[in-house]
Amino acid sequence: MTTLLVLFRRPEGGVEAVEAFERAYMESHLPLVAGTPGLRSLRVRWVSEALGGPTDLILVAEMGFADRAALDAGLASDPMRAAGRNLRTIAPGLVTMLVLEDAPGLVPGDWR
Amino acid sequence: MTTLLVLFRRPEGGVEAVEAFERAYMESHLPLVAGTPGLRSLRVRWVSEALGGPTDLILVAEMGFADRAALDAGLASDPMRAAGRNLRTIAPGLVTMLVLEDAPGLVPGDWR
Repeated sequence: MTTLLVLFRRPEGGVEAVEAFERAYMESHLPLVAGTPGLRSLRVRWVSEALGGPTDLILVAEMGFADRAALDAGLASDPMRAAGRNLRTIAPGLVTMLVLEDAPGLVPGDWR
Repeated sequence: MTTLLVLFRRPEGGVEAVEAFERAYMESHLPLVAGTPGLRSLRVRWVSEALGGPTDLILVAEMGFADRAALDAGLASDPMRAAGRNLRTIAPGLVTMLVLEDAPGLVPGDWR
């Protein structure tokens, strides 16, 4: 499993800016993401709190693909290219995109 | 479901420092985390690449709990308190801990 983890930082402009981002994310962005070929899972979660210090992160989206080749194919697809353009409009400079690979050898046996 | 998402930044000191962190994380930290009461899931993933820009993040750990009360009970438990002390030794100042709540209303129906 290869995961694309997208971390969204808080926009400037207070609650109104956050709410505008939320609406745009739900209405214009997620429908594009959901149409990505090869997408195995899609999970969107709010950051409700940061422990041990402040954070500027407000939302975490996770897209699962079978492997890195499937992710790359998804990234090259029309829906994801449109989603990328959309992101630059609704969250300019506010996104960190990480490619994650499972590390099963690290995790104690009971939890694999 | 309430999730504790822990983001680890790269330690200074090059490859040797990263390898030392990996060993300490696997040998001293994960066994403590795995013993947390109420833990429903544990997933550890490497950051293999950042898309669209550099990142200082190298590892992402995700701990699932039934709800926020279960997370709080887990955080107050002896294993997690020991894990917190351990983190301050093996990754001082390199950790961001986020409490995530599912946002099912956001996700298109097919993906809920």
